[in-house]
Amino acid sequence: MATRTRMSREARQDQLLDLGAELFADRSYEDVHIEELSEVAGVSRGLLYHYFPTKRAFFAAMVRRESGRMAELTTTDPALPVVDQLNQGIEIYLDYCKDHKLGVKAIFHGAASADPEIQDIIEHDLRVHHDRIVVLIEPGGQASELMRIAVRSWLQFMRSACHQWLDAQDTTRDEVRDLCAQTLLGALLALPEGSRPSGLAGLAD
Amino acid sequence: MATRTRMSREARQDQLLDLGAELFADRSYEDVHIEELSEVAGVSRGLLYHYFPTKRAFFAAMVRRESGRMAELTTTDPALPVVDQLNQGIEIYLDYCKDHKLGVKAIFHGAASADPEIQDIIEHDLRVHHDRIVVLIEPGGQASELMRIAVRSWLQFMRSACHQWLDAQDTTRDEVRDLCAQTLLGALLALPEGSRPSGLAGLAD
Repeated sequence: MATRTRMSREARQDQLLDLGAELFADRSYEDVHIEELSEVAGVSRGLLYHYFPTKRAFFAAMVRRESGRMAELTTTDPALPVVDQLNQGIEIYLDYCKDHKLGVKAIFHGAASADPEIQDIIEHDLRVHHDRIVVLIEPGGQASELMRIAVRSWLQFMRSACHQWLDAQDTTRDEVRDLCAQTLLGALLALPEGSRPSGLAGLAD
Repeated sequence: MATRTRMSREARQDQLLDLGAELFADRSYEDVHIEELSEVAGVSRGLLYHYFPTKRAFFAAMVRRESGRMAELTTTDPALPVVDQLNQGIEIYLDYCKDHKLGVKAIFHGAASADPEIQDIIEHDLRVHHDRIVVLIEPGGQASELMRIAVRSWLQFMRSACHQWLDAQDTTRDEVRDLCAQTLLGALLALPEGSRPSGLAGLAD
């Protein structure tokens, strides 16, 4: 760009968040100085601080944006059988992560931050996905503690598998999708009688 | 104790590590000031620094101690079938976590530390368990990338399930053991033909 273009507030924020994702993608949260962003983006520090007064505010906005997009995208078709909805959700999640690799890796790295507010954001994000899955597999709302443990633990499985896949050489999207889906079903169908999700009734042998 | 007893170097270190685990169990790594330990333990700061010059050195020693004990304990009986060895390993892991709840919770919290050296220690620990399982299920050493992704992701599942169980109300040890074991088998047996572990041959339907 020869001249700095005038951008709307939203477009400017979006641009800063995109550039910021690159900074955070391969470095730990604590290593990144938010001031670097003003250089990369070619905006004054004043303008940067105007939009994002602190690194934490910036990172929070980044996580919120990714979570928001993700939550919107992974809304599955309620007309489909539960298993298909789970598969669909996993597939969309993986595709999203591939397409937004830098932002997603940034969040993975941020998850290893000790900052309590960042931890709260990550925790909130985890809870949203947890609650969605629980509502899907146990529509009555009577999820046992064990079932909740299973779902939450599986989300860590999923996150880890996705994170590894983003840097993998020989592994396809469909292989990871099947791995994650089968693992979730395996975990849920192996729950003892009283804890097994009613939304999956008929699937257990 | 009315008087301060003379302890061997090793016994003193062990005592400090035990007391330290209590400090770290419910707080994040960054929140704990290592100097608190000298008060709790009733030793001078000089003596504390003599054994552990920094918080990081202290935490590293704590993780190394727990990992070392765990690695020793979870050595399974090679005469047993692979599935029994996996079950046995999981059972010992869960029992160990219950018996050393504070130390283990401290490590779980530390895992959320951004300190690169602490991350290295946690990563090393994860790798030890990963390699052990891979050798067990794929004795030929030809583990595919996908199988490695499955094992590593499952370790995050296991860690999360154990962490949740330590604070759970209605969930028994055996329920968590079965959940983790079934989930691992489900993940591994669902791998595509070329990636399925040879150590589990005969288990797949």
